[in-house]
Amino acid sequence: MNSWHERDVRVIWHPCTQMKDHEIYPPIVIQKGKGVWLYDTSGKKYLDAISSWWVNIFGHTRGEIVKAISHHAKKLEHVIFSHFSHIPAIKLAERIVEKAPPGLRKVFFSDNGSTAIEVALKMSFQYHQQQGQNQKKLFVKLKDAYHGETIGALSTSDLDLYKKIFHPLLFPTLTVEGPDCFRCPYQQHRETCQAECFEKMEKTILSSHNQIAAVIIEPLVQAAAGMKIYPPLYLKKLRKITETYNIHLIADEVAVGFGRTGTFFACEQAEISPDFLCLSKGITGGFLPLGLTLTTEDIYQAFYAEYEKQKAFMHSHSYTGNPLACAAALATLDLFEKTQALRVNKEKAFFLSNKVASSGLLDLPMVGEYRQVGMIGAIELVADKKTKKPFPWQQRTGYQIYRKALELGLLLRPLGDVLYFMPPYVISPKEIEFMVDKSIEAMEKFFFS
Amino acid sequence: MNSWHERDVRVIWHPCTQMKDHEIYPPIVIQKGKGVWLYDTSGKKYLDAISSWWVNIFGHTRGEIVKAISHHAKKLEHVIFSHFSHIPAIKLAERIVEKAPPGLRKVFFSDNGSTAIEVALKMSFQYHQQQGQNQKKLFVKLKDAYHGETIGALSTSDLDLYKKIFHPLLFPTLTVEGPDCFRCPYQQHRETCQAECFEKMEKTILSSHNQIAAVIIEPLVQAAAGMKIYPPLYLKKLRKITETYNIHLIADEVAVGFGRTGTFFACEQAEISPDFLCLSKGITGGFLPLGLTLTTEDIYQAFYAEYEKQKAFMHSHSYTGNPLACAAALATLDLFEKTQALRVNKEKAFFLSNKVASSGLLDLPMVGEYRQVGMIGAIELVADKKTKKPFPWQQRTGYQIYRKALELGLLLRPLGDVLYFMPPYVISPKEIEFMVDKSIEAMEKFFFS
Repeated sequence: MNSWHERDVRVIWHPCTQMKDHEIYPPIVIQKGKGVWLYDTSGKKYLDAISSWWVNIFGHTRGEIVKAISHHAKKLEHVIFSHFSHIPAIKLAERIVEKAPPGLRKVFFSDNGSTAIEVALKMSFQYHQQQGQNQKKLFVKLKDAYHGETIGALSTSDLDLYKKIFHPLLFPTLTVEGPDCFRCPYQQHRETCQAECFEKMEKTILSSHNQIAAVIIEPLVQAAAGMKIYPPLYLKKLRKITETYNIHLIADEVAVGFGRTGTFFACEQAEISPDFLCLSKGITGGFLPLGLTLTTEDIYQAFYAEYEKQKAFMHSHSYTGNPLACAAALATLDLFEKTQALRVNKEKAFFLSNKVASSGLLDLPMVGEYRQVGMIGAIELVADKKTKKPFPWQQRTGYQIYRKALELGLLLRPLGDVLYFMPPYVISPKEIEFMVDKSIEAMEKFFFS
Repeated sequence: MNSWHERDVRVIWHPCTQMKDHEIYPPIVIQKGKGVWLYDTSGKKYLDAISSWWVNIFGHTRGEIVKAISHHAKKLEHVIFSHFSHIPAIKLAERIVEKAPPGLRKVFFSDNGSTAIEVALKMSFQYHQQQGQNQKKLFVKLKDAYHGETIGALSTSDLDLYKKIFHPLLFPTLTVEGPDCFRCPYQQHRETCQAECFEKMEKTILSSHNQIAAVIIEPLVQAAAGMKIYPPLYLKKLRKITETYNIHLIADEVAVGFGRTGTFFACEQAEISPDFLCLSKGITGGFLPLGLTLTTEDIYQAFYAEYEKQKAFMHSHSYTGNPLACAAALATLDLFEKTQALRVNKEKAFFLSNKVASSGLLDLPMVGEYRQVGMIGAIELVADKKTKKPFPWQQRTGYQIYRKALELGLLLRPLGDVLYFMPPYVISPKEIEFMVDKSIEAMEKFFFS
């Protein structure tokens, strides 16, 4: 019998992975998880500083969620969700609507972040068609946007890494240069600026609003772009102008929702209500795939008609509204209350930023910026601190540090040369210290030894 | 407190549903499931003749699967699947590869049927680009094909019901008239023909093979098209010609895999190996969303290179390889062995076709054809038995019978005017009789009273 990692690479093709990398670094086979820790088959443990692709919030194998799933699996594991329904889906929709920005009152279920985005794009497109605004066919996205990797979601993403080769399959969109606070071309700071960079979005909308169905955006943080944090004012301006020109605003809170930025939804910090709110990842506490697309009564009504008018939204996935995923989500919402997660996260975020400030991390010559919002902290590595010149991508600097950190028991996956902290909310002060200290140690090992 | 169905329609937008229909027929809120039965909040029970959108195979709340999920949730609910792995995913990939047609040796995980298709399309496209066959950009689909509803999957689908309005967002494809055995233009019969209709596919491939990346097909049954069953010979011919012209064959077994047509995979009946095999639905026994895309060593190797060559397949979903879904899938594979499902299904399929033959169903004036393969049986309703003229779609004949059947305790969802049986494999002879008898009763109620 071969070892697990040998058996793995024989049959599995891993996502977003150059499989040849495994020749040097075989896949790490995890056997169990508890709290912020993952344990591999050899017993070695890793602090999961990235919440396993940003999904975990209350710790691995969290008891309350395990119980909810196990309990409901005995009752009703699944039922078709067209003309049929079930209690966990109804309760979940009610509770999410209650927590969502005002006006978002209808919940469409799907299976993951990509499908939650596809649903919003298709609904927005069909809405304008059915309202007789047939020319409104274009979607506007930000530079460096990421909204998923199915063809529709990928069309509204901008990162070449994911989309370049698939260009002939994607539908046309407009791309607007968005906020780039670390290298702000207006020489402003995200804490004090007036979102001067919004002028580019304004220009695009003023010139093309007749053709624009919707603008899609990741509120507050362009996550896959390298945790690019930008001010709420940008969102305020965007909401205002899209309202004026009958353009939908699609808020992709797949990564930033569920308390990650300090408020339950990131949109709250800009005091805006989008026309579509897309959710996934943390919604089930990191246990099961589930996607939600919330929208307004106005949009819902544009599809509500006699059957013969053929205005229905014809989109479905077999496991739409899966009861087990809904049960996990309800347990997750309970945990927000029980643990007072938003209040406690404020303290933890404060502790994290203090720890970083006092750790010497900012003094390292290759640290261009440390930025943080809520429970997201990001370290942008640069070849030259003064000019902010990046390292050549071929050097894979972030990846090398990731490797060093793994040796030290820290799972700190980079986005290019941006390292980031996005830990489960249950992380303790001691574990925060471990996370920051080991990150510095990994960087020093790579750069100085 | 309002009733559950009132609370439902206030906040939930159901998939593939004209929500206005609920004014007359409110959503049925299911509270528990057991075996082939679903129980609503009033205690009324329904025989789930469609396996809740074709996902359930070993019965609702099947104990062995409940146990597997509950057990594994305590151990490891989820872990990032890039560079990390876990034992249920490895075991599942090994066991599926063992069962799959020869040559399919690598397994890529995703979350549902649509994403399994998107993965195959993107892999095929990227493969040809990386092999220097840059002109191979087109996908060929069959008339009436259905492969899912994300923009990529929808582009390779053909049913107007789902795609017409989204046309400007879809990538171009070639559409070929496929088998239409009920209304065969060659006046042949599916049991004895030589797949004469393949000439249309041949013509398209001969004239355009330089531009074709892949042909995508639902083996043996075009399911959403109305359970259109066609002979294996068509697949044999298709595999031969695609091999000759360096065209990938994508087999979408999302609906027909896992024993549904009598063999474990439908491709087996044609003795072919496709280049991509897409799986979902039944794979977890109907408990949790999970998608798999299997492919060949040859295709895998075209992406295997030094990182700097940027040949990796950059596709991921956060919950890729979810351990709970994998645990459910392993328990499902165990149940295939334990219950000898394939052997037992043969007997049940035989019992079903005998029951239909002796029931008088075929004599009803509106039954154009009853066709069956394995555990799929379909009744095509027609306005004129002789000319096979369909009912006007606006009459919603299938839907009206569905409503009658629900009153009789049978969930028999139609595809347009095709009613079908696709029950969980655990259905008993007595329940098969109930299913057929109540179907006839519902049809008679609608047509004759």
